[in-house]
Amino acid sequence: MKVAEVAGTVVSPISHPFFDGKRLLLCDLIDPDGTVGGYVIAVDVVNAGVGERVLILDEGSSARQIFDVATGPIRAVVVGIVDEIA
Amino acid sequence: MKVAEVAGTVVSPISHPFFDGKRLLLCDLIDPDGTVGGYVIAVDVVNAGVGERVLILDEGSSARQIFDVATGPIRAVVVGIVDEIA
Amino acid sequence: MKVAEVAGTVVSPISHPFFDGKRLLLCDLIDPDGTVGGYVIAVDVVNAGVGERVLILDEGSSARQIFDVATGPIRAVVVGIVDEIA
Amino acid sequence: MKVAEVAGTVVSPISHPFFDGKRLLLCDLIDPDGTVGGYVIAVDVVNAGVGERVLILDEGSSARQIFDVATGPIRAVVVGIVDEIA
Amino acid sequence: MKVAEVAGTVVSPISHPFFDGKRLLLCDLIDPDGTVGGYVIAVDVVNAGVGERVLILDEGSSARQIFDVATGPIRAVVVGIVDEIA
Repeated sequence: MKVAEVAGTVVSPISHPFFDGKRLLLCDLIDPDGTVGGYVIAVDVVNAGVGERVLILDEGSSARQIFDVATGPIRAVVVGIVDEIA
Repeated sequence: MKVAEVAGTVVSPISHPFFDGKRLLLCDLIDPDGTVGGYVIAVDVVNAGVGERVLILDEGSSARQIFDVATGPIRAVVVGIVDEIA
Repeated sequence: MKVAEVAGTVVSPISHPFFDGKRLLLCDLIDPDGTVGGYVIAVDVVNAGVGERVLILDEGSSARQIFDVATGPIRAVVVGIVDEIA
Repeated sequence: MKVAEVAGTVVSPISHPFFDGKRLLLCDLIDPDGTVGGYVIAVDVVNAGVGERVLILDEGSSARQIFDVATGPIRAVVVGIVDEIA
Repeated sequence: MKVAEVAGTVVSPISHPFFDGKRLLLCDLIDPDGTVGGYVIAVDVVNAGVGERVLILDEGSSARQIFDVATGPIRAVVVGIVDEIA
């Protein structure tokens, strides 16, 4: 998993039906010291807000299990909110 | 997922039969600020045009589910058109 | 697999229930000569301490087999403590 | 998928039996403008020659389906010859 | 697959039982021109020695098939010794 900071939400009106009603977050991947290194678009499951530090899990099988679906075009998910790294 | 801009179409007359009749798009991966960082060749499912910003999902199992096939040599798919990131 | 050095633990009170009771380690990926190159958040199974050199396996199916679960949102695991590279 | 240029063939007399009788190609990954960015060793299925531009699919499940085997140590395959990108 | 040069062996006395009795090799990934670009820790199946050029396959399903196990925490395997690239 990686740590990321939520930077915004993605609006994609023309998309695969799987994404209907799901929040897509633009997440800046960050190093533990806070520097930014790329980004990923992830589906939210912990109701994270812009500016929060989150845990990103980027694997299709994990993602489908989280949504309890056998099939679904999904790979990256926000699985946790980071409180502290110590 | 990643955001990309459609840069062109790929013509591959000698290829695996799975690709017959499918549109292959050359997609420049972009950062949210618009800078380009590599590319991917993806199969189109939302009828995206050159110059449009799209969502790229890059995972084989997801891709096969989108085309409703159990097998098929495919990994990257254009799954949405991006309207806004805010 | 990669070699990493345990740099700390991650506290994520709001997260997927799978992570309840599991130790999440911040692991700095290192080259054999000791230089740092990125990091990964991994679940611990060998009780590694901060400062120890460890083996990181980063694949979902492997990770779920280690925890003996058919499903679970997990990908990276600390699978060994490195004694020597010679 | 990625675009690559075939740079040579790999001779590996001591290898897993799966590779017996298969052509292993050294493929330089290229950007659409022609610059080289790394390489991959891929199994050929379209009889590509040195210097030709090809499509590389890099996923194990796809690769095994192409060879119609349930198991097999394979991941990258040359799945097409690129005629034009426009 | 990638080409690598075996640089050493990894001693990990505290590790997952799957690795008992298996040789773990530190493999420097190399470009065809010989420059080094990162490394990977892989399990050996062709009895490669330090200094030899080898083929690395980095995919979990392939790796488990090579060891004929349905489960096992493994991803990268040395699958061949490279004689020549021409």
